[in-house]
Amino acid sequence: MQRFEAVYEIESPRGIAHAAEVLAGEQSTGTFVRLALETDALRDRSGARIEAVEITGTSGVPALPSRSRGEVYERGRVTISWPEENTGPSLPNLMATVAGNLFELADISALRLTGLTLPEGFALANPGPRFGAEGTHRLAGVEGPLIGTIIKPSVGLSADETAALVGTLAGAGIDFIKDDELQANGRYCPLAQRVDAVMRVLNDHADRTGKKVMYAFNITDEIEAMWRHAEMLEKAGATCAMVSVIPVGLSGLRALRDRCALPIHGHRAGWGLFSRSPHIGIAFPVWQKLWRLAGADHLHVNGIANKFTEPDEVVAEAARAVQAPVCTGGPAHGAMPVFSSGQTVWQMAPSRRVLGNDDFIFCAGGGIMSHPGGPAAGVIALRQAADAAREGVEITEAARAQPELAAALTAFKRPEILL
Amino acid sequence: MQRFEAVYEIESPRGIAHAAEVLAGEQSTGTFVRLALETDALRDRSGARIEAVEITGTSGVPALPSRSRGEVYERGRVTISWPEENTGPSLPNLMATVAGNLFELADISALRLTGLTLPEGFALANPGPRFGAEGTHRLAGVEGPLIGTIIKPSVGLSADETAALVGTLAGAGIDFIKDDELQANGRYCPLAQRVDAVMRVLNDHADRTGKKVMYAFNITDEIEAMWRHAEMLEKAGATCAMVSVIPVGLSGLRALRDRCALPIHGHRAGWGLFSRSPHIGIAFPVWQKLWRLAGADHLHVNGIANKFTEPDEVVAEAARAVQAPVCTGGPAHGAMPVFSSGQTVWQMAPSRRVLGNDDFIFCAGGGIMSHPGGPAAGVIALRQAADAAREGVEITEAARAQPELAAALTAFKRPEILL
Repeated sequence: MQRFEAVYEIESPRGIAHAAEVLAGEQSTGTFVRLALETDALRDRSGARIEAVEITGTSGVPALPSRSRGEVYERGRVTISWPEENTGPSLPNLMATVAGNLFELADISALRLTGLTLPEGFALANPGPRFGAEGTHRLAGVEGPLIGTIIKPSVGLSADETAALVGTLAGAGIDFIKDDELQANGRYCPLAQRVDAVMRVLNDHADRTGKKVMYAFNITDEIEAMWRHAEMLEKAGATCAMVSVIPVGLSGLRALRDRCALPIHGHRAGWGLFSRSPHIGIAFPVWQKLWRLAGADHLHVNGIANKFTEPDEVVAEAARAVQAPVCTGGPAHGAMPVFSSGQTVWQMAPSRRVLGNDDFIFCAGGGIMSHPGGPAAGVIALRQAADAAREGVEITEAARAQPELAAALTAFKRPEILL
Repeated sequence: MQRFEAVYEIESPRGIAHAAEVLAGEQSTGTFVRLALETDALRDRSGARIEAVEITGTSGVPALPSRSRGEVYERGRVTISWPEENTGPSLPNLMATVAGNLFELADISALRLTGLTLPEGFALANPGPRFGAEGTHRLAGVEGPLIGTIIKPSVGLSADETAALVGTLAGAGIDFIKDDELQANGRYCPLAQRVDAVMRVLNDHADRTGKKVMYAFNITDEIEAMWRHAEMLEKAGATCAMVSVIPVGLSGLRALRDRCALPIHGHRAGWGLFSRSPHIGIAFPVWQKLWRLAGADHLHVNGIANKFTEPDEVVAEAARAVQAPVCTGGPAHGAMPVFSSGQTVWQMAPSRRVLGNDDFIFCAGGGIMSHPGGPAAGVIALRQAADAAREGVEITEAARAQPELAAALTAFKRPEILL
């Protein structure tokens, strides 16, 4: 029988071994009081099982407010497994099991879900990304990393203003442009008008140059609207649909995946709620598995030396996770990590080094628009940085013969990178 | 122009006023560097606005790990508003705006979303609950609070074993039964078999007694599966569908609402992740508005003196919030709070007092099954407790003439209630 397995970092006033029992019981056959119907046979068949318990330390105070109190709060790591037959390969039910009613347990004063190992049944029954890196590279007509940017200001531009900016960016040779996640289908820039205006520019550009710039239109919305809009995008010749995955949910993303003929650009707006506290949350390598299985082709991972709060090693681990096989067997369902937030030529080599390949999207804003030679020089400099990284040439070395890269290295401050 | 407004409790090493600027900028027209296109007219039209800033204290250390450091971490409350026209009344886009990329801001070392005021446009454009308390009371044929229970063990029972337990509970006079949120559509208790076996029992019971016990079948799954299963429930004569709202998402819940002819029982599995930390998260009164607008008829609020970690005043506030008008105008879209977790006759009067009405579901497990007179006496005792609460009679007073209630008061320990 196949089982899925979750790893939790927990703290408990009653000891890690006891907390593991509570967690396994509460999330499967147990109740606060053992019932007559909870036979040994039933527990053997359907119960969660404690696979490992490791104590890592203690604390004199609880990490989070807790109804249960103790003299000492033990910290550690527990591994719990469940029979796949409890839920079948259903992602929403998997989530309700491994990340359900357990963050509130009174005997647990801190809990982070840090590991998730899934048997191949999940990779076989769920669709995963339709395009992934290979399909995205093909649609964008690019072999290296996709050099991209985000339309700013995030909201407030009209459809025509957006299209004008897109024209500038396309002219600069960019590969990928996306709506900001705040750009919805509002009154001043309705999606239909935006698609019309932007695709007129990008289709014209493609006719002239042979290069179809990939634009990720934010279609985050109700299911029927997303379906309608995905179809609208396809008809307009667009090559990417963006969605904020948390609001639409696992079931929502999967429904879009089933009827969307374009790559799905998965935005993780709201992610900080899951990641910011060391005491409660879900690690990104766990979380991203669910969204990839549901169909995300691209997933945001923040950027190396970003302007938010995640340390570089967390970003590196997140990016690698998005490319790693999603289950222990079956299709790998690899997706494409998207780096963004304060990115310039300086972060290109470290980003590529983290992955060891070019299967990523690299979004820069100021890093393109503020290049002293203008946006075209900004895009060229990033591509030069990517080429140097692929060839293993130091960026300062590569800049000697490449003036755009040299200018970027001077214009943009070298960030401190801790990798 | 209508605006929606969010209140955040934040901490910042750069001061609350500065943090408010960063938050409002980042979540609307701003970028790290002000762009030429970000004109004053654009900001006036589409920008977020700081409505209030209140400083409440300081701390010498950051509440959460933070890239930005300071000598003093100021704490306070800020109110930010956005034009409704940015997103329209689209719930997923509302969520991406008020609970999006802001939990990770480097200049903010703690953030909880504690208030959300929505103009009537949201109540008019979104469907809200199809049944609410009135429809639920009608379907269940009950005037007082619905006395309910949850099938335990949570997983592992076969469809026939579940139906046998349901027969016992129906015979005991119960109003409402639900699947545990861990009970999915797995191999040992497939949903179709469970519906068939359970509804045979409940339809027979209704034929004999005129009372149709409401059973909330957990249909949490992909959209197409939920639609298929909602139809299956309706055909089988079932009167409630349950869904774990977080995994299916706002868009997923709304899609179910649009094609489900039964009340939707919203389970909040995973809620602890949003609520457990005092430093990051979303307050339940905010969070529940989104799910009600999307269509939840019932929403779990934990219980007074529960076995998890939420204090009683948090549970009380949550329960009242579920019944309060969802927007500042338009339909109220009231839903029904569901109390559960370690509930016995002792918590009935406090639960009713919190609301001032009978429009709630009261789930007890041991509080019914472990009554010394058996489950039927357990249900009778809870109903006696509800009647006493409605009539304003002290429970110990009411027990004098009602032996089932008296036995329950003796059998179950009086919990400490802090309200």
